[in-house]
Amino acid sequence: MSHTVRQKEKLIARVRRIRGQMEGIERALDTEAACAEVLRQLASVRGAMNGLTAEVMEDHLRQHVLAAETDAARRDGGEELVEVIRTYMK
Amino acid sequence: MSHTVRQKEKLIARVRRIRGQMEGIERALDTEAACAEVLRQLASVRGAMNGLTAEVMEDHLRQHVLAAETDAARRDGGEELVEVIRTYMK
Amino acid sequence: MSHTVRQKEKLIARVRRIRGQMEGIERALDTEAACAEVLRQLASVRGAMNGLTAEVMEDHLRQHVLAAETDAARRDGGEELVEVIRTYMK
Amino acid sequence: MSHTVRQKEKLIARVRRIRGQMEGIERALDTEAACAEVLRQLASVRGAMNGLTAEVMEDHLRQHVLAAETDAARRDGGEELVEVIRTYMK
Repeated sequence: MSHTVRQKEKLIARVRRIRGQMEGIERALDTEAACAEVLRQLASVRGAMNGLTAEVMEDHLRQHVLAAETDAARRDGGEELVEVIRTYMK
Repeated sequence: MSHTVRQKEKLIARVRRIRGQMEGIERALDTEAACAEVLRQLASVRGAMNGLTAEVMEDHLRQHVLAAETDAARRDGGEELVEVIRTYMK
Repeated sequence: MSHTVRQKEKLIARVRRIRGQMEGIERALDTEAACAEVLRQLASVRGAMNGLTAEVMEDHLRQHVLAAETDAARRDGGEELVEVIRTYMK
Repeated sequence: MSHTVRQKEKLIARVRRIRGQMEGIERALDTEAACAEVLRQLASVRGAMNGLTAEVMEDHLRQHVLAAETDAARRDGGEELVEVIRTYMK
């Protein structure tokens, strides 16, 4: 994943935020917070995960398909994206 | 959507199957079938819709990105796909 | 699905709208509309299907769980809902 | 969320597993693993999150709806679940 340094930092910051949210969910379960509150936090992580995944897919499309250096590399990058789309649409 | 004739027929056949499933759901509601049965049929349509959508995305990627005739056309096809991915991952 | 008449009419109207949207998608494929346009219409059906499904789930919860006449009926209605939730969260 | 101790431990163990998976994703990004690999790990977390969420919903249904001590408590538990279903089906 040959991201630019800036892009890499941005993705890692998103992952860390989600890790923080997961710690919050563990705490909520541990202190027996209301179910509804735990479910709200889970929904919030789901949104953040979807956003992160869309961003990684977009990076992949840009770098390994649109900006591929050879036709063969572009084909490979494209096939990987097809695989990912199938997984996510199942 | 300049699909090959064969690909187009295949997609249309999928759409018709889903239309048939939706008629089944209307009938189930009309004859007051059990909720659980209606929900099973809805889940089945959801699966069929996801499969159809994944196939249209894949076609788009193959024809308008991988097989694009110019770099500009490829960029446009790629941007459209980015837009679609964002919509579906929201 | 012993819905009130009014509720039944409302659900059937939603199903018919989705059937109309599916006809639109068939037409779009048949007339070779742009991929991006077909994908937008597919996303719109997905939203409508999710809304319909949430409404049927909610009806089920209200009628077969909250308003169940016996504890046994409530337990059965609850187990059906658990089954549905598992299917949709997979 | 007045879970039994055993149920609580089980949920917390699931959350910790997901936290471990998120650390793996951070590491993959940091060491510039292949995009396709990062996307596979993201899909795996998504599956684990969905399973965890289904389990919390199921617990909520069992404890705050099916096993509610009063009709008023059951109604409140039911309304919370309706809210959650709407959020997740959007």
